[in-house]
Amino acid sequence: MPATGRLVGFTDGVFAIAITLLVLPLTEARLTDAGLAGELRALWPQLLAFANSFLVIGLLWLLHHRMFRHIAREDERLRVLNLLLLLCVAFLPFPTKVVGEHGITTVAAVFYAASIAGTGLVYAALWSHAAGRRLVHSYVDLALIRRLRWRSLVIPVLYLSSILVALVSPPAAWMLWWLYWPAVWLVERRF
Amino acid sequence: MPATGRLVGFTDGVFAIAITLLVLPLTEARLTDAGLAGELRALWPQLLAFANSFLVIGLLWLLHHRMFRHIAREDERLRVLNLLLLLCVAFLPFPTKVVGEHGITTVAAVFYAASIAGTGLVYAALWSHAAGRRLVHSYVDLALIRRLRWRSLVIPVLYLSSILVALVSPPAAWMLWWLYWPAVWLVERRF
Amino acid sequence: MPATGRLVGFTDGVFAIAITLLVLPLTEARLTDAGLAGELRALWPQLLAFANSFLVIGLLWLLHHRMFRHIAREDERLRVLNLLLLLCVAFLPFPTKVVGEHGITTVAAVFYAASIAGTGLVYAALWSHAAGRRLVHSYVDLALIRRLRWRSLVIPVLYLSSILVALVSPPAAWMLWWLYWPAVWLVERRF
Amino acid sequence: MPATGRLVGFTDGVFAIAITLLVLPLTEARLTDAGLAGELRALWPQLLAFANSFLVIGLLWLLHHRMFRHIAREDERLRVLNLLLLLCVAFLPFPTKVVGEHGITTVAAVFYAASIAGTGLVYAALWSHAAGRRLVHSYVDLALIRRLRWRSLVIPVLYLSSILVALVSPPAAWMLWWLYWPAVWLVERRF
Repeated sequence: MPATGRLVGFTDGVFAIAITLLVLPLTEARLTDAGLAGELRALWPQLLAFANSFLVIGLLWLLHHRMFRHIAREDERLRVLNLLLLLCVAFLPFPTKVVGEHGITTVAAVFYAASIAGTGLVYAALWSHAAGRRLVHSYVDLALIRRLRWRSLVIPVLYLSSILVALVSPPAAWMLWWLYWPAVWLVERRF
Repeated sequence: MPATGRLVGFTDGVFAIAITLLVLPLTEARLTDAGLAGELRALWPQLLAFANSFLVIGLLWLLHHRMFRHIAREDERLRVLNLLLLLCVAFLPFPTKVVGEHGITTVAAVFYAASIAGTGLVYAALWSHAAGRRLVHSYVDLALIRRLRWRSLVIPVLYLSSILVALVSPPAAWMLWWLYWPAVWLVERRF
Repeated sequence: MPATGRLVGFTDGVFAIAITLLVLPLTEARLTDAGLAGELRALWPQLLAFANSFLVIGLLWLLHHRMFRHIAREDERLRVLNLLLLLCVAFLPFPTKVVGEHGITTVAAVFYAASIAGTGLVYAALWSHAAGRRLVHSYVDLALIRRLRWRSLVIPVLYLSSILVALVSPPAAWMLWWLYWPAVWLVERRF
Repeated sequence: MPATGRLVGFTDGVFAIAITLLVLPLTEARLTDAGLAGELRALWPQLLAFANSFLVIGLLWLLHHRMFRHIAREDERLRVLNLLLLLCVAFLPFPTKVVGEHGITTVAAVFYAASIAGTGLVYAALWSHAAGRRLVHSYVDLALIRRLRWRSLVIPVLYLSSILVALVSPPAAWMLWWLYWPAVWLVERRF
């Protein structure tokens, strides 16, 4: 079972590209000279969606960073799970664009929240596999395994809960997503 | 003959970008607020093409990973063959878009299957060169060389066979491509 | 506190993509066979915006390179500040496109200058944190810390000053941005 | 003067992205179900431009690979020259698109050839600087320096000569670009 250097490098490439592609819906906006100030202001839902998805993918990258610091070896299934993770991450620019342009509809808000929640669940699966098959460094104990398991569930739990809110009121779901950041911050600080 | 570090890093970059660009046809879809649910459902051929091409490129990356674990040195021809490989991989977002939007036509299905089959054939050529010129590590024996040769032929053989099916019925070819995944899985497990 | 290898690799990925995406507004220009020469000439504002933003992002990358040569360790806050930096860098293709297409308007010129100035300010914050928390190598002394602090303020100060000019005359702001390059060159040479 | 690891990694990122973005003009083609076969055939100028630019950028990457194998240290000016090189490489998707869509016009053919020739000239400047300032490994002798200087001039000389041909007949320039590949091959083999 080889070390994880190349797997991590490839992963960083996909994360870096997905996070940078988020700007494309903004660059595709049709603008005019005369009404530019108003048109830029009217882009605020896309700007919010860009910033939120950037922070979400950035947080997922930090989580990957943290997990793989403790993972010493890779096996075939870890590579496949990591590929599924990248499939989700590379998909995120699409729901980001949908919620940026159609965010007041229930469909868009649910689609966005479900995409992020699904991505987070793959993390939990990946960590369970790595911990269960002892692909981790020898210093990793049960307490650390549990802590990272809880941490990997923060994003899925938060975004699954926001689906229920989005069914009633999409703008309330938007507000929730931003309220989550202090919650994430608190959880991060506790551990 | 230097080690393969930089060649592998550049290759990972191209793979990471090509696999992430697959999402662009989805982000370019024109959607409306009113009909969003139906419009997202109508995107299922693009979604299937995205997922299938992601898995194909992902599998090709895993194969590259596996080959280059055993390759110790590079020469000029290996670099040129690897560049041809990247030419094919960087091209794949185009047939993916064509089959996602025009998949019910024979032309699109044949074009897609031929592009993937061609990419796979370059792998076989690359491995033959590396094994024949002894660019591999000293522990690599004939059995391992043969095993990886067979493995590199799985994708070309499957997709070439699907061309015959696509000539009769493009939807049947689609079904085949998804039926291939269990076949790939079985072959992967046997070796 | 681990070393910064992976953080730097991910950062390079985002910089490389953002700097390469700058070409997209050019490739999206609608051109015709008959009027091609004139149409290419008419693209000069986009060409200037492409070149200027390329040089700005390139300079920011050189600055990152210089800072992280002296940074030995990372902590969670450094990672978060670096993520904010990448958020700004990944955003820059958008103001670049706006100023390339609507550069004669005050709104576009101010928006562009403010985006670059904001990016530069995050650098100053990142360096203050790294120096204040002693994440730097042991050879780094107060003189070097101050030098890099001043250097990280060159871009924000220049672009903030250009906002005032842009409020009066956007073309004068354009001229300033190009006049800045000799100024940057002089500052770079002095240190 | 530090080692070139990070400079090379960033460079590989820009090359990998620029070479992969070349496919975008193809994916943006408007196609229909009914006329797909004919429409794909009508894309042959874009396909040729894609393949030629891929091979050119690939060759430039091989050249960078070869040069930096011999470069041991970097200084500020090497970094700036390398940044200019990346500016040229990141720009190439634009002339590629122009020549793919308007290749029968003289303007497009000259613009394309000049862009590639200019990129090649920066290589010669970069190598002159590295060799003149002794940033190279100690084993590098005058013969190797001259050999790489000649090699870095192959692309500029060929493409500058094609400008003269393009002024008379753009299709003849296209033919030249493909005839160059055997010439490049021969030069590569001699050294």
